[in-house]
Amino acid sequence: MHLLSDLLGRPVADIDTPALVIDLDAMERNLAAMAAFAAQHKVKLRPHAKMHKSATLARLQMAHGAVGVCVQKTSEAEALAALGVNNIYISNEVVSPFKLKRVVALANALDALGGQLAIAVDSLHGLQALAQAARGQHTVIRVFIEIDVGHGRCGLAPGAAAVPLAQEIARHAQLQFGGLQAYHGRAQHFRTVAERREGIAQVITHVQTTRDALQAAGHDVPLVTGAGTGTFSLEAASGVFGELQAGSYLFMDRDYASNERDPAQPRFEHALFVKSQVMSVCADHAVVDAGHKSHAIDSGLPAVHGLALDYANGGDEHGILRGAVLPTLGATVWLIPGHCDPTVNLHDYLLGVRGGLQSGKVEQIIRVDARGMLT
Amino acid sequence: MHLLSDLLGRPVADIDTPALVIDLDAMERNLAAMAAFAAQHKVKLRPHAKMHKSATLARLQMAHGAVGVCVQKTSEAEALAALGVNNIYISNEVVSPFKLKRVVALANALDALGGQLAIAVDSLHGLQALAQAARGQHTVIRVFIEIDVGHGRCGLAPGAAAVPLAQEIARHAQLQFGGLQAYHGRAQHFRTVAERREGIAQVITHVQTTRDALQAAGHDVPLVTGAGTGTFSLEAASGVFGELQAGSYLFMDRDYASNERDPAQPRFEHALFVKSQVMSVCADHAVVDAGHKSHAIDSGLPAVHGLALDYANGGDEHGILRGAVLPTLGATVWLIPGHCDPTVNLHDYLLGVRGGLQSGKVEQIIRVDARGMLT
Repeated sequence: MHLLSDLLGRPVADIDTPALVIDLDAMERNLAAMAAFAAQHKVKLRPHAKMHKSATLARLQMAHGAVGVCVQKTSEAEALAALGVNNIYISNEVVSPFKLKRVVALANALDALGGQLAIAVDSLHGLQALAQAARGQHTVIRVFIEIDVGHGRCGLAPGAAAVPLAQEIARHAQLQFGGLQAYHGRAQHFRTVAERREGIAQVITHVQTTRDALQAAGHDVPLVTGAGTGTFSLEAASGVFGELQAGSYLFMDRDYASNERDPAQPRFEHALFVKSQVMSVCADHAVVDAGHKSHAIDSGLPAVHGLALDYANGGDEHGILRGAVLPTLGATVWLIPGHCDPTVNLHDYLLGVRGGLQSGKVEQIIRVDARGMLT
Repeated sequence: MHLLSDLLGRPVADIDTPALVIDLDAMERNLAAMAAFAAQHKVKLRPHAKMHKSATLARLQMAHGAVGVCVQKTSEAEALAALGVNNIYISNEVVSPFKLKRVVALANALDALGGQLAIAVDSLHGLQALAQAARGQHTVIRVFIEIDVGHGRCGLAPGAAAVPLAQEIARHAQLQFGGLQAYHGRAQHFRTVAERREGIAQVITHVQTTRDALQAAGHDVPLVTGAGTGTFSLEAASGVFGELQAGSYLFMDRDYASNERDPAQPRFEHALFVKSQVMSVCADHAVVDAGHKSHAIDSGLPAVHGLALDYANGGDEHGILRGAVLPTLGATVWLIPGHCDPTVNLHDYLLGVRGGLQSGKVEQIIRVDARGMLT
């Protein structure tokens, strides 16, 4: 296996470790469940591609009904657009004049691909810098005003603060008011259904207050967009949100699986795994060759798949396994990452396996096209 | 700045954010201080290249007296060897027969470059697999027996357990007993000098016990290698260690700077920074465009350089700043990463700046050659 492509068609056992592996069967069930949910609830789906950073997977989601994808970074959008993804929403603020030039070039590129670019703003300064960069262009950029619906990060205070921005958007031929960006990131990880219901009820109130203020000032709100894998059934049921941005449902990480499941949500399966190998065994623990350079630990350590073992942090390149029955030297251990987004960002490729982790074969090598795209 | 190379000679202000920046002046002072320390204490220096993963920086360290570098992964060694680094020690266990074939190919490649490969073992099984892979080759691989000197990860118990491995090494013409690998990773981060002294005193005892057992069985121990940026002055003073593996001294992260400084160690400066930009400001906080996809947080959050601001985790792509005086929208904020090794691994390039972070210019673009090299 000196070339990655030599792995195609080979058994799982031939995948060198550590490696990031997708169970394609599980992923496709997640994909179908989410598409069915969106269709049933008559809500648009615009999955967050910051999770997988792959044009192949973005196109797969769009082939299954997604209207486009979100990203967080201009360079992520550039990487996906270069591979034909034509409908991209940068659901984040960009204020650097240099980067805004790139945003406008990207908008022109998506136009040429028959799609459109959208972006979030939360300041008059940022909006005017965007308008300045777009002046004289033929492209029309959809602009979403971000409001802080409880996350406490970016976004204007809910209510009348959005009105001057909507007025400013209306002054520029190259800008079009897309609606409101309303995402409560922390609420995704509230463990109980009750906490998440309460959190999203407040989100809805903040959105309504802002929509009312905008309507009173003569600005219709075409769309409210937000939601994540932890809460999207609540936003979908609200009648206020027209678009869902959930991304992690495709791979389902250990952290999201730790939430009490809302019966209104589809039952997603773990589809992303780190294949690791036991490289050292002693009396009371075994050591695998996957540490936090192989999987992100911001949302906690990985779970061990299918074995009664606890994974303890062994540093950048090691994981320490403890349990009543330790695996033997050289054994394969599958880890379920705590958080899929930054885990994928550590890898150049995702190896798609068909037929299960035990006896499956490598069917697809998926490039993480926007890996490391930070700007 | 559409091409990275366009940045050469440009002022710091032109660096798009987020970006990983080296203060070259500070780094070179750290380099010189460590070289002087090793020369003064008559100990070899073999810095850990798992930190910077760059052939350019490995060669720079070797030009300043380092005998070679350490790495943790076979693929890291391959990436550096491909760029001419000819003396590499994989200070970690490899047990996969497939990977051991690569190790042997690498040993041949380093031979051809006039250097040598070394590797660590901690099991008879792993050692025999290595010997099997090397059989019939002309290369000679130096093999270090790893003992667990208190870290609690890989390594044999100190004492007689090393003897059968030394005996096995002696049976194979392609293997040469290099000595003992004795690294106490946790001790690097003991905050007080007293704790670190106690931790390394135990390390020394474990090494001596093992050396005595090997000598009693007729095996001289040519070299003891280990130590990190937190403790190396203790290992250097022991008379037992002949080689130091410290790597982080070159960049000096926030976590190491939180240690009480041992007066016996040189005073290293922060030389690695994430350049970030304020992208959103509200009443009680500002938001920068650098989250934990820009810097690793396994050893804590970054510090804000030169400003009285606290950095709070804002997720994958954001950092939240709080303080009495908030920076303005668009302002530059320099972050000192908590842990340099996994931070560098998130980036493709390090931008070397000469003349300081305020008014300096980009002098060098250093590729992170082994970024993402996990296998």
